[in-house]
Amino acid sequence: MGLKKDEFGVQHSARVQFKASAFSGKDGPVPVRNPGRKELVPKIVASNVDAQLIFSRLHGSSKGDVRISVERVEFVDDERSRIGRSKEVASKFMALAVLTTIKYGTHVVVHVGAHMAETDQVAGPADRLAAMNLSDSVQNHAFSDRVLILSIVGRPDGGAGLAGQRVRAGGWVKTGREQGKGTFAFLELNDGSCPANLQVIVDAGVAVLSKLVATGTCVVVDGILKVPPEGAKQRIELRVESVVHIGEVDPAKYPIPKTKLTLEFLRDHLHLRSRTNTIAAIARIRNALAFATHSFFQEHHFLYVHTPIITTSDCEGAGEMFQVTTLISEAEKLEKDLIKNPPPSESDIETARQLVSERGAAVKQLKDAKASKADISASVMELNKVKESLSKLEERSKLKPGIPQKDGKIDYTQDFFARQAFLTVSGQLQVETYACAVSNVYTFGPTFRAEQSHTSRHLAEFWMVEPEIAFADLQDDMNCAEAYVKYMCNWLLEKCLDDMEFMAKNYDKGCIDRLRMVALTPFVRISYTEAVELLEEAVKGGKKFENAVEWGIDLASEHERYLTEVKFQKPVIVYNYPKGIKAFYMRLNDDLKTVAAMDVLVPKVGELIGGSQREERYEVIRERITEMGLPLEPYEWYLDLRRYGTVKHCGFGLGFERMILFATGIDNIRDVIPFPRYPGRADL
Amino acid sequence: MGLKKDEFGVQHSARVQFKASAFSGKDGPVPVRNPGRKELVPKIVASNVDAQLIFSRLHGSSKGDVRISVERVEFVDDERSRIGRSKEVASKFMALAVLTTIKYGTHVVVHVGAHMAETDQVAGPADRLAAMNLSDSVQNHAFSDRVLILSIVGRPDGGAGLAGQRVRAGGWVKTGREQGKGTFAFLELNDGSCPANLQVIVDAGVAVLSKLVATGTCVVVDGILKVPPEGAKQRIELRVESVVHIGEVDPAKYPIPKTKLTLEFLRDHLHLRSRTNTIAAIARIRNALAFATHSFFQEHHFLYVHTPIITTSDCEGAGEMFQVTTLISEAEKLEKDLIKNPPPSESDIETARQLVSERGAAVKQLKDAKASKADISASVMELNKVKESLSKLEERSKLKPGIPQKDGKIDYTQDFFARQAFLTVSGQLQVETYACAVSNVYTFGPTFRAEQSHTSRHLAEFWMVEPEIAFADLQDDMNCAEAYVKYMCNWLLEKCLDDMEFMAKNYDKGCIDRLRMVALTPFVRISYTEAVELLEEAVKGGKKFENAVEWGIDLASEHERYLTEVKFQKPVIVYNYPKGIKAFYMRLNDDLKTVAAMDVLVPKVGELIGGSQREERYEVIRERITEMGLPLEPYEWYLDLRRYGTVKHCGFGLGFERMILFATGIDNIRDVIPFPRYPGRADL
Repeated sequence: MGLKKDEFGVQHSARVQFKASAFSGKDGPVPVRNPGRKELVPKIVASNVDAQLIFSRLHGSSKGDVRISVERVEFVDDERSRIGRSKEVASKFMALAVLTTIKYGTHVVVHVGAHMAETDQVAGPADRLAAMNLSDSVQNHAFSDRVLILSIVGRPDGGAGLAGQRVRAGGWVKTGREQGKGTFAFLELNDGSCPANLQVIVDAGVAVLSKLVATGTCVVVDGILKVPPEGAKQRIELRVESVVHIGEVDPAKYPIPKTKLTLEFLRDHLHLRSRTNTIAAIARIRNALAFATHSFFQEHHFLYVHTPIITTSDCEGAGEMFQVTTLISEAEKLEKDLIKNPPPSESDIETARQLVSERGAAVKQLKDAKASKADISASVMELNKVKESLSKLEERSKLKPGIPQKDGKIDYTQDFFARQAFLTVSGQLQVETYACAVSNVYTFGPTFRAEQSHTSRHLAEFWMVEPEIAFADLQDDMNCAEAYVKYMCNWLLEKCLDDMEFMAKNYDKGCIDRLRMVALTPFVRISYTEAVELLEEAVKGGKKFENAVEWGIDLASEHERYLTEVKFQKPVIVYNYPKGIKAFYMRLNDDLKTVAAMDVLVPKVGELIGGSQREERYEVIRERITEMGLPLEPYEWYLDLRRYGTVKHCGFGLGFERMILFATGIDNIRDVIPFPRYPGRADL
Repeated sequence: MGLKKDEFGVQHSARVQFKASAFSGKDGPVPVRNPGRKELVPKIVASNVDAQLIFSRLHGSSKGDVRISVERVEFVDDERSRIGRSKEVASKFMALAVLTTIKYGTHVVVHVGAHMAETDQVAGPADRLAAMNLSDSVQNHAFSDRVLILSIVGRPDGGAGLAGQRVRAGGWVKTGREQGKGTFAFLELNDGSCPANLQVIVDAGVAVLSKLVATGTCVVVDGILKVPPEGAKQRIELRVESVVHIGEVDPAKYPIPKTKLTLEFLRDHLHLRSRTNTIAAIARIRNALAFATHSFFQEHHFLYVHTPIITTSDCEGAGEMFQVTTLISEAEKLEKDLIKNPPPSESDIETARQLVSERGAAVKQLKDAKASKADISASVMELNKVKESLSKLEERSKLKPGIPQKDGKIDYTQDFFARQAFLTVSGQLQVETYACAVSNVYTFGPTFRAEQSHTSRHLAEFWMVEPEIAFADLQDDMNCAEAYVKYMCNWLLEKCLDDMEFMAKNYDKGCIDRLRMVALTPFVRISYTEAVELLEEAVKGGKKFENAVEWGIDLASEHERYLTEVKFQKPVIVYNYPKGIKAFYMRLNDDLKTVAAMDVLVPKVGELIGGSQREERYEVIRERITEMGLPLEPYEWYLDLRRYGTVKHCGFGLGFERMILFATGIDNIRDVIPFPRYPGRADL
């Protein structure tokens, strides 16, 4: 099949300009006045921090290397002084202009150019070949002999431009059925590279069809891509010439058949559940959010610091911490050894003692008898030998089964780290040591709580993102938290829209709108005192809460949800909490009653982020530790950060799984982490 | 100070083209024939996978938004058919062309264009302001009220173009000294954003100089950037107008004074050592390698999967695993409780029993006496109450201090996860469940070994990168490993050259050359059998090894180092190892003696990567498990991956700290992880 004509209608080396104009809006991507070329779909994604003008050329495929780019941005109204900067990214199918700090409602006209790359006009045949490779053929994955299904059906043209190409594809059968009285079979093949399947058609002459059609079957096939008959849903399909591999499935035994399975059921089949559309989509969204996290902090010059998993800093009370030890396994090893080689009895030792005194007497006798040097020294050697074997016996007789004790307590000096060790509950205190040296840092790693929580919101092992910023205060902290959350929302809208559409269709109709709303809306910022006033007003107005509201309480989840979901219906940052309910390291405000803490509340999950400016004043933090009844000694290293070259700094923690719950609309946290750990369960 | 003239000498809106030509070389970046404009420094970074032509415009700063871009790439010789594709990235100061699979020695001519962005010619004053903001002023960090030192001294012009600008800077004093009989002070200020310091000059009228000059002091200052007098090392310095913050240091007490400190000494001050140049440089290199890792796998469509830290899959023998438990803390809690509230004595229980039988008798009596319903039911209630309190007493009397036992063994059903749990030694088996569903995945997280190793190469907690690729065999595995290592080397050369230069100057003269060599040289690939033959030859030639060489041995570190450092002096991949020395999951080769395993050996550290094609045949892997004396039951979930929809797949693990040792030339692994854990030590 031939190539489609370039949708822009431009000639090689010609350059066209046209205008698209839009108001940056509050309500998400806005279709803008379009110069009448329907292939070019401009939209504006705006927030109070950044506005992005995205012009994506959909359904594009062309012979040459057509590129579109933002040529010029024009501001119609008089908000010019607020324009920070504009950066452009031009790629084959998309032009992107990022304009910082545009006021809402600014009228923007964007001049977009589309032109053939000059390589295409003047370069030799090799270059033309290279350019053609990109557009009308598809390459194998770099480390496999098959193409990714994404690189066929994930193209802007749905793969249509690849018709006629011979490819090898592999994946697992989502649904398969024999047709035409068993003369051929349709397979929906998925390899996880995108939510979409590749439709595959196999003739009975090519393979035993019944071996192919069971859900879960792995197949690798060679074939030719063809445009399907009119009216088909897909834009391309694969006609199989030969079947290279079949990983069969016995449908009678397959634990996760095609029938609709509940997420709860799937939790009992952790090792297979990633083969379902839902868990695979969550995996791609989780991956996207993780890389968005790294990209955001790297762009802002934060260093990724690996804080320790095993810690001896017991900062939040050992009750909620898992202990890490080798004492039990060492004790078990010893017990087994003592059964195999029982410890010496008292009479064994007595016999050995007697032998020592006999040999000692023998030496003395020889010396008294002034025997030859050689005889004496031989006798001394004998004595030393039996002495040594006695001391070994005595040593062994002291071995006791069980965990080593000293003064009635477990002797942790014999544990692996020579002291009691735990799994970390947060990397914050440790990452502060890096912030107070290299300014901007973040951790992103697993943290642990040994809580007996059986709720849908708690895990024993979960991932946290914890940035820490030097030379920054609570305002900076809130700015960073807001920018980070918005960045993740935009990232998903830009790079994971197909998976988000799957979630919207199957789990939470509003999840895409929620992402847009959060990406576009400035977060409400209110003090804790204001928050309590609002809650008290609500109570007066008839709202019932399970937990009574008064100044000084820790806000309960119901209060947080009310503020973000009912009162404001957008993200809310609550700051300046009473010091009594917050940690010692949070900076005391001048009122001496509150600390510079902040929580970010979002619809659907409530608290997403908790953070604070840290107390940088040595005398104040020392007093806070004492005031809260904590011992000073374990915090001496932490106090050193204030003792020497102290700096104003702040940071926050984001529960990564909560962000995924927020994004996907999934209800149970156990479904958004690949291998959930909770009381009674740690499968695999 | 005014702006420098545009080095290209181009007029606004003019467009110039000129040629630079180069041979892609084996020996690292090659200075190429240059069109005579010394500001444009083209170089080629080539490997057998990718060749990058980088044209960086150094020392640039200009009024408008000058951009350089690769206009056309011309291949002079006849290797055209091997050109895969070319992609271009144009930025303000750099043009980059990535050309895949160019043969060594290919003669390339690159046409480079430099032109003013059109915004600058036609846009209104607001746009011009925006453009000027970029080039001759410097912005505060997004989440702070001060500029990063990197954004001053890290500019291509060393900051010179910013002269005249008023900025706020913050950091820690590296060295400070009073001069001119105490009339002013020089401070070398560093904020960790780059290895370079900002020179700061403070007059005595502005602050008490003696409070500023101690190493480690934190200062925030407002001032004006000035060009220093001729002959100065730096290209810009900051004249302070006011001092905003001082975090003092008492030099008499500061644990890490300016004197040369050994890395060993610093290990006793983990919380402060990131303030040293060395540990900060390592932190930036570690961060760069981590982000390079994510970037590499994301570019190749791998999903980042968080495998669990806590695991109940005891796959490599519990001896080397840390146990995770709440049994000890629960037992300690119980013991405390039992001291406070001693368990009931036998007589307490006897008393309660008597009470129950009395109440029982009373009920019977009332019934026999046909008492009123109300009386009987009151009496029954009394009986139930004493019954309940008896059963509570009996329950409590069973409580025994210590760890719960059952049948003489620890009762793990009472542990947090209702079974024995450990810290993971590898995420491979778990990540395979995702590879067998979504094709390309990787883990990057902490792993643990409870080994009593006191060497400079082992940690109890270390980070591993473990990709897993479906539809891929051992060749693909080797290709992926080689591409990944080369990618990291190129990344450091491109983005961390200043830190690498610091390491080269202070720790390992050859470290930059080593990165270049590995980035450019195709890895040698030899079978295990060939490797053993080469070692045997070496022995014949007089080479002495501590471990005897014969077919079947596991290669020792000395053997690996000999192959990569002496014999080939480049990276070596050894593949197809005897099955007896490798894990059960590695794919059995057709010779039935070897498995499809591979190790990547590099100079300086020896084994950097270990990987294999996995055994995908159900019957074969089942037999291998049995053959190795392992129980089948714990592996049933793993076998399911082969039972249902099995797929050819492979993967490898890279020890992340080893990669940092390799890159930096640092000798002890404890210095390249922020918080090292090893026998007897887990500080913080």
